[in-house]
Amino acid sequence: MIPEQLSKLRALSPEELPEFADTLRAKIIDSVSRNGGHLASSCGCVELIVALHRIFRTPEEKIFFDVGHQAYAHKLITGREDGFERLRQHDGISGFTAPWESEFDPAVSGHAGTALSAALGHCAAEPDSDNKVIAVIGDGAMGCGVTLEALNHAATLRGSRRLIVILNDNRMSISGNVGMLSKALNRVIAAKSYNKFRKTLKELLSPLPRLKNLFSRLDEAGKSVLLPPAFLFETLGFRYFGAVNGNDLGALVPMLERLRKIDGPILVHVITQKGYGCEFAAAEPTKYHGISGCDPDTGELKSSQSGGFSAEFGKAMLKLAQEDPDLLAVSPAMLEGTGLTGFSEKYPERCFDTGIAEEHALTFASGLAAAGKHPVCAFYDTFLQRALDGVYHDAALANLPLVIAVDRAGAVMDGATHHGIYNCSFLRAIPNVTVMTISSPPEMYEALKFALSLKSPVVLRYAKNSGTPCGSGEPFRLGEAVIRRHGNSGMPVIWASGSEIAAALKAAELLEESCGMNSTVIEARFLKPFDRNTAMIFAAERHFTIEDHSSSGGLYSALSETLSEVPNGGVHGFGWSAEKVIGHGSTEQLKNEAGVTAEKIAGKIARIYKKS
Amino acid sequence: MIPEQLSKLRALSPEELPEFADTLRAKIIDSVSRNGGHLASSCGCVELIVALHRIFRTPEEKIFFDVGHQAYAHKLITGREDGFERLRQHDGISGFTAPWESEFDPAVSGHAGTALSAALGHCAAEPDSDNKVIAVIGDGAMGCGVTLEALNHAATLRGSRRLIVILNDNRMSISGNVGMLSKALNRVIAAKSYNKFRKTLKELLSPLPRLKNLFSRLDEAGKSVLLPPAFLFETLGFRYFGAVNGNDLGALVPMLERLRKIDGPILVHVITQKGYGCEFAAAEPTKYHGISGCDPDTGELKSSQSGGFSAEFGKAMLKLAQEDPDLLAVSPAMLEGTGLTGFSEKYPERCFDTGIAEEHALTFASGLAAAGKHPVCAFYDTFLQRALDGVYHDAALANLPLVIAVDRAGAVMDGATHHGIYNCSFLRAIPNVTVMTISSPPEMYEALKFALSLKSPVVLRYAKNSGTPCGSGEPFRLGEAVIRRHGNSGMPVIWASGSEIAAALKAAELLEESCGMNSTVIEARFLKPFDRNTAMIFAAERHFTIEDHSSSGGLYSALSETLSEVPNGGVHGFGWSAEKVIGHGSTEQLKNEAGVTAEKIAGKIARIYKKS
Repeated sequence: MIPEQLSKLRALSPEELPEFADTLRAKIIDSVSRNGGHLASSCGCVELIVALHRIFRTPEEKIFFDVGHQAYAHKLITGREDGFERLRQHDGISGFTAPWESEFDPAVSGHAGTALSAALGHCAAEPDSDNKVIAVIGDGAMGCGVTLEALNHAATLRGSRRLIVILNDNRMSISGNVGMLSKALNRVIAAKSYNKFRKTLKELLSPLPRLKNLFSRLDEAGKSVLLPPAFLFETLGFRYFGAVNGNDLGALVPMLERLRKIDGPILVHVITQKGYGCEFAAAEPTKYHGISGCDPDTGELKSSQSGGFSAEFGKAMLKLAQEDPDLLAVSPAMLEGTGLTGFSEKYPERCFDTGIAEEHALTFASGLAAAGKHPVCAFYDTFLQRALDGVYHDAALANLPLVIAVDRAGAVMDGATHHGIYNCSFLRAIPNVTVMTISSPPEMYEALKFALSLKSPVVLRYAKNSGTPCGSGEPFRLGEAVIRRHGNSGMPVIWASGSEIAAALKAAELLEESCGMNSTVIEARFLKPFDRNTAMIFAAERHFTIEDHSSSGGLYSALSETLSEVPNGGVHGFGWSAEKVIGHGSTEQLKNEAGVTAEKIAGKIARIYKKS
Repeated sequence: MIPEQLSKLRALSPEELPEFADTLRAKIIDSVSRNGGHLASSCGCVELIVALHRIFRTPEEKIFFDVGHQAYAHKLITGREDGFERLRQHDGISGFTAPWESEFDPAVSGHAGTALSAALGHCAAEPDSDNKVIAVIGDGAMGCGVTLEALNHAATLRGSRRLIVILNDNRMSISGNVGMLSKALNRVIAAKSYNKFRKTLKELLSPLPRLKNLFSRLDEAGKSVLLPPAFLFETLGFRYFGAVNGNDLGALVPMLERLRKIDGPILVHVITQKGYGCEFAAAEPTKYHGISGCDPDTGELKSSQSGGFSAEFGKAMLKLAQEDPDLLAVSPAMLEGTGLTGFSEKYPERCFDTGIAEEHALTFASGLAAAGKHPVCAFYDTFLQRALDGVYHDAALANLPLVIAVDRAGAVMDGATHHGIYNCSFLRAIPNVTVMTISSPPEMYEALKFALSLKSPVVLRYAKNSGTPCGSGEPFRLGEAVIRRHGNSGMPVIWASGSEIAAALKAAELLEESCGMNSTVIEARFLKPFDRNTAMIFAAERHFTIEDHSSSGGLYSALSETLSEVPNGGVHGFGWSAEKVIGHGSTEQLKNEAGVTAEKIAGKIARIYKKS
């Protein structure tokens, strides 16, 4: 069944297409302004998506979006119009492409850079098929290792003749691009002069057959070699076309129609304007990259939480930079999200944005550390998954003084691809790495200072939420947990890490109120080294753990492993299941569903004690 | 203190250098033929290393090798001559560069592709220093994501004027190169004609000032644009020099002397011959890439173990390919090592080598799976660390039918950078992934067939050793452990995964013989899902786990977590410490040192029972 909007789109006259696109964009602005989401990139991509669905036989012909936050118009066209107002809402549709949601979504697309690899898999699976495989990749992904690996591999593959790469070049990934490739992409302007030059030269050389012949051979071998993007992609075996205005359906549709008929691998360089058609988003695309909501007319942003961990991180870094001239900041395209905008403005020479290049960022920072500097890397938890090998190979083995500040640890609004709930498992398994968490934003400065004092790799994790003011005020001591509530013997011992200490304290209160149970509450500041001494003191008691992490590999595992050494009262863990995918929605909704709110935890603990 | 060989090298006349290089090479051949190691690449690199140490002021000026197995001559020159015969031996020197070994080794270099990032860190740490920073990177690393990310970043960095990249192009990484970049590197032959053409053209254009001007501008912007490697690197902001014969000290030394004086970032394209100066290694460089030893005169290889897991994997894949036309193989430059040479010859169109591009390999395979194929990815355990994000984001979230065969799981001869003892931690934490192990090579076919039948992501782990014949012969049932020895109540319950079942069975025998203790032995075939039922049956007993994995995140954790739910007899784990770096040496030596041989385990268990 072809979805209604798709049928409609294919039946329109070419003249009617712009209006169709405008209607889609209006829906996007309406929904994102109310519910939040990625506004600027999805607005800029509407015409391109309309043209692609018009020309290619989706869903037999697959479109891979990289990343999926540019694909809102695609969702609207492919049968998800009704659910669109519940975009990124619990039980609503995902903010990225998701194969479980639609046959029009061939791959998951939450982490940048993967679309081309996945598309090549489709090409190679049926090399003789005549269906095209389209990968729409942003210019930001062009500096990302996995995309570059795939670009290198593409033309050597049987089946890559099916491939059309749409380079959606909006001249910035999230907040401006990094690196030489993006500079090369900008050097398309010479095209016109070059073609003129070539023509004149050939005429000029006519009386000199040997020289003309030489030029022709070189010209043919290198094709439009004097244009950096053309040459780059031609060298990689692609047929390069462009640059074309990606917000102009009148240019885009005929071009794609033509390209549909020729063999690839093809790369079409499409220039789009981030925020196109939405005045305020076009004016400030970085501000409107991902938002929590805004006024649909004026663009005034919904007041987002002030303070919070990211803000405190930014402040702490500014303070530490004054105290320590060797302090540096490194981030793979997350300076802004992690709170480092102020730092980057005040200390541009001490701040390194590698673009979307997580592996390089970590190894580069290791190089800074080996050379005597004190780098702090700022990552979102989920993207640190890309750099785990570097944490081991480049930082941990040489025991370098490197702090990795991990923002957005725990479940987040963006869903399955973005939850930061897996990394502690690996980090706890490798040597020389300290894994610490903080529960409250005001602890940030002391925590960072302590982490830097260890002169070895430290991962400092904290959630995205603004946090309830639940810090203990205790100084940090390596490997030491903090007892936050002294309960009675024979009563529950509740451990929690990070912001979950608030839930633990509340659960303990509820247990006291409802059943008169006086629980002990322990804040496990260090997942590694874990506080064996404190665990041993309470070994015989019944333990409970609360953590914003997979229930395999984090606090529950650390405590279970430690207590296993001796006879113990057992551990019951409250965390995210390692058996099922955790979807999207507000953290409260997800926790409620998983039964890990303070109320549900207290209820569960009470039932366990009642039974025994 | 400048090491003796280095002083000597700097005092020699230019004419004496080749003999010096020959002496180093003879030592390398002598030592590697006796003790094993990387022969072909280190032989090819001797002159280059001699020239670098001659011209640059090491150790103030740093040389980063990528990967370190090409750096044996560097080790000999920098004070490690005496220990060189204990290369890769227990308590001897590492087979890669290692900062804890020498101030001449600025970074760890066991995983390909990291040197440029680390070198950039050094450049950026002291941007105003006049010391050069040299990164010697192999052509194989040119297709590797982290190198490409660093190439893109390099020229935009303050301090990169210190950078000299030596592209050590031996026209093959391990067993021949992959991808379009390596093709471009081979297109240097046009250089001479191009320079001639340029000169003639300029003369010819003299009477036509506008055209000449245009050409000059384009020529300047693109420089030697008609030469693919030159253009590529110039586009990336490097000054490209080459190609120069890297085995010719007469060409190399003056060139480096010249380049020493100019600002970078510079890329020198050096062509070396893999195995240069060692007849048999030069003739068959792939055969002599990494060897266990050989006759130093004839090159006859020391008979390596026949059979083993890799061989059985190769055989099983051939058989399965006949049974299932949709079966495909994917590997990032490990086809040969994992036993797939035969498969790649028989089914070239069903076999994909991505080169050293681990992330892309995994995501590409996910694309194949999503398109209905049945891909089996072949990785060494340690290199899967590079693709963990892909396992989660691309394979697990969409629950794709993808089997990852993980060879060389456990501690290996190559040392810290290569032990495959960390990944289970992460793999157990994420949803939809099955983690299984086999204990004996003959189980391979059934295990793979079972893994493919699950139609979801499966990681199948096995060691490098040939394995004692210790398989149970039991059919595979998802999540079910196999009881291999029925002991008495009140006696030890010993769990083991993979080949460690042999140690468990032996320890049980020893306990029976020496103390009359009748232990139960359980083979934990599945680390995920873990066999909760069997664990519960024995919950009250005292448990022991034996595994070739970090003691955090593997079998010990799985059992501890499971037993934590109920009152239990506790678990004592025998595995690799998560607190310290595991070095190099034979597996036996390492296990002996860590106290995890069957004898030591039996002794420890006996002592525990005696105490209680």
